[in-house]
Amino acid sequence: MPRIPRGFRDFPPPVMILRKEVLSKIEEIYKRFGFDPLETPVLEYWETVKGKLGEEAETKLMFIFPDFLSKEWYTLRYELTFPLARFVAMHPELPLPFKRYHIGRVWRHEEPQRGRYREFWQCDADVVGSSYPEADAEVIELNVEVFRAFNFQDFVVRLNDRRLLTGIFEEELGIRNPVPVYRTIDKLDKIGEDGVRAELLAKGMHEGVVDRIMGIISVKGSPKEVLEEASRIKNEKVSSGVDHLTQVVEMVEGPIQVDLSLVRGLEYYTGPVFETVIKEPKIGSVAGGGRYDRLIALYSDRDVPATGVSIGVERLIDAGLELGIFNLEKKSYVQVYVISMKRESWPYALRVARKLRKEGIYVAVDLMRRSFRSQKEHAKKLGVKVLAFIGPKEVEGERVTLYREDGTRVEVTLSELTSKVKELL
Amino acid sequence: MPRIPRGFRDFPPPVMILRKEVLSKIEEIYKRFGFDPLETPVLEYWETVKGKLGEEAETKLMFIFPDFLSKEWYTLRYELTFPLARFVAMHPELPLPFKRYHIGRVWRHEEPQRGRYREFWQCDADVVGSSYPEADAEVIELNVEVFRAFNFQDFVVRLNDRRLLTGIFEEELGIRNPVPVYRTIDKLDKIGEDGVRAELLAKGMHEGVVDRIMGIISVKGSPKEVLEEASRIKNEKVSSGVDHLTQVVEMVEGPIQVDLSLVRGLEYYTGPVFETVIKEPKIGSVAGGGRYDRLIALYSDRDVPATGVSIGVERLIDAGLELGIFNLEKKSYVQVYVISMKRESWPYALRVARKLRKEGIYVAVDLMRRSFRSQKEHAKKLGVKVLAFIGPKEVEGERVTLYREDGTRVEVTLSELTSKVKELL
Repeated sequence: MPRIPRGFRDFPPPVMILRKEVLSKIEEIYKRFGFDPLETPVLEYWETVKGKLGEEAETKLMFIFPDFLSKEWYTLRYELTFPLARFVAMHPELPLPFKRYHIGRVWRHEEPQRGRYREFWQCDADVVGSSYPEADAEVIELNVEVFRAFNFQDFVVRLNDRRLLTGIFEEELGIRNPVPVYRTIDKLDKIGEDGVRAELLAKGMHEGVVDRIMGIISVKGSPKEVLEEASRIKNEKVSSGVDHLTQVVEMVEGPIQVDLSLVRGLEYYTGPVFETVIKEPKIGSVAGGGRYDRLIALYSDRDVPATGVSIGVERLIDAGLELGIFNLEKKSYVQVYVISMKRESWPYALRVARKLRKEGIYVAVDLMRRSFRSQKEHAKKLGVKVLAFIGPKEVEGERVTLYREDGTRVEVTLSELTSKVKELL
Repeated sequence: MPRIPRGFRDFPPPVMILRKEVLSKIEEIYKRFGFDPLETPVLEYWETVKGKLGEEAETKLMFIFPDFLSKEWYTLRYELTFPLARFVAMHPELPLPFKRYHIGRVWRHEEPQRGRYREFWQCDADVVGSSYPEADAEVIELNVEVFRAFNFQDFVVRLNDRRLLTGIFEEELGIRNPVPVYRTIDKLDKIGEDGVRAELLAKGMHEGVVDRIMGIISVKGSPKEVLEEASRIKNEKVSSGVDHLTQVVEMVEGPIQVDLSLVRGLEYYTGPVFETVIKEPKIGSVAGGGRYDRLIALYSDRDVPATGVSIGVERLIDAGLELGIFNLEKKSYVQVYVISMKRESWPYALRVARKLRKEGIYVAVDLMRRSFRSQKEHAKKLGVKVLAFIGPKEVEGERVTLYREDGTRVEVTLSELTSKVKELL
């Protein structure tokens, strides 16, 4: 038996039919918000990416390999933001803001488990060129609209700003190496306040500092209240973060929670960061994003601000399936199965199939010279709604007998065929 | 300046907008013919592919590489048929016929040139499980319908059968190593009859044999006439090929030409093979396919017959652009640009944008705090058809002033907004 690469998946028709429906709905919302499509290669030169995505990504997660024919080192794209940055750097002529969406797959060397794959899909939308809160607000609201469109009920956007983290932890609390502290804070949801406190103390931090950290990250309340609380810290970075977030919060219609414990992994964020979390099932964040004003400058001599969101398709679909929002019941697009009762009726059956196809109906016809009964069975396996029977009588009278799964039966002429089929579907 | 991998391309919005339109039209036709979508990984284990796609592919064209983290050898998929064969082998429970389409990219180490890339898209449709001419006829007609749907005028499907080639050249003419002969015959279009004759003689073939070859491959006429001519060769393989093709030709509505010089590259074909060629521009074959009854058995102990077609997206689009069937004029999906004349009107502008978006209109709004004039200029660069002006007067009266590029100007209330916009689009 052949093997499929570990962590990779085939998507058979019922899964693809659902995925296509979900992705096209997301795409439609991206278009409504004025985003346009961009596609980039699945491979990038490793030199283009090196040093930009952080140590963990580059040593443990990325597919990096030599190609013997071209004698180059490539990487399979790890996410969709750095190819955008490369593209923008290579196209200084682009009118700004450049608003692009990109729905595509990315690859990571995760240990495969439920909801984690080595090949998975992301839906990204980014605004390149604007440093204003309007842009952050737009991608956050876009992301909210996606969850609304699928009727997810209990979701919340957790919002923070990198400048709050830097201003508070690095400048005010004087933590020289904040990354381990951020890692611990990031676990607040998982291990709770006591867990965070214990872990910070175990890392050798002073109790006074830990107390202050706990005070900061446990501030709860409306976005306004949390931002007011944060604004008491007199620090330039904190102030600019508070000011920016205050405007963002005003501009978005949606369930936002300002959460000073939100860290997010990727190294390149410079301003607002956010995550969208579904409360049930507890599947982690389903979407996330933020502002990265210095990534594009790594590729060019221009400083181009940018902000964006990435929606994780696998988690969105897994959560939706668990909540009963999605299902895998549709097995096939086929709407009508044309059944030829005898081999001699086949040319007429093909004529009927052609007519329906021309008028936009999805039609299958027997390709196996099967018995009448086997054709019916196959149609049933596909879940086809309407059967079009062609027997000698139908051939002679240039008619078709239509059956619907619920027993409805109607005989029609060729000219009535399509409209009647549409009624029955 | 960062580099994009050689032979790979970025597709900016105007290109993507066209490509999406083309691909969704093709997909729609595939669905009308009763095909369902399947997606497979871009990577396969090299061991899964090895020995199945022929020497040229495996030594010169495929991307094959070691991955240091998983310690496996992978290959980027070279085409979409062998992953289908692997999938079918791994899923013996699939109801047959299994009709799947797959629109996706493939990778080959071609030397980049006009119309040739290292990453390109194919649209495949295959019928798995039927050995009957009905299945070949269906994929051929499907392919004809695609060219018709785009209004290509001068195209022709060249049709042959592997059994004719084997029966005639290997069995009747006793050519032991037919591959070099096939390669020469395959050049008939390029080098003409004299060229083929000269090359065969140069390969050391007897003049008598060359004469017979030239006689066979130069037979012209209707499919029926060519098949009748071929049927005079009394050979079992030739007879079964002629019989199969005769039925296929009867079942397809479309411009078919039986062409005994058609060879086609891939090693796995066993029955009918075909290519769709556009006469102008001379871009080579745009689609091709055939029957491969023994490929799936390479992956399992089941012998499952199959036949299919692959449409080359790049050539289809390049040819269509050259013929003026396609164009790259559409720069953006954005239909309405909401222009706020003063900064204070922004909240109302956002409200207008939200309203239009909810009703399915593609809307952009200023994210750069630009002047009225700069917003207009940006809208023009995107080619947006309708501008929605929001000034203090509009805010006060809860109205919007709509302008179309042709100068039409109309002031509307919020409740009239969407219907009026739809009229103007």
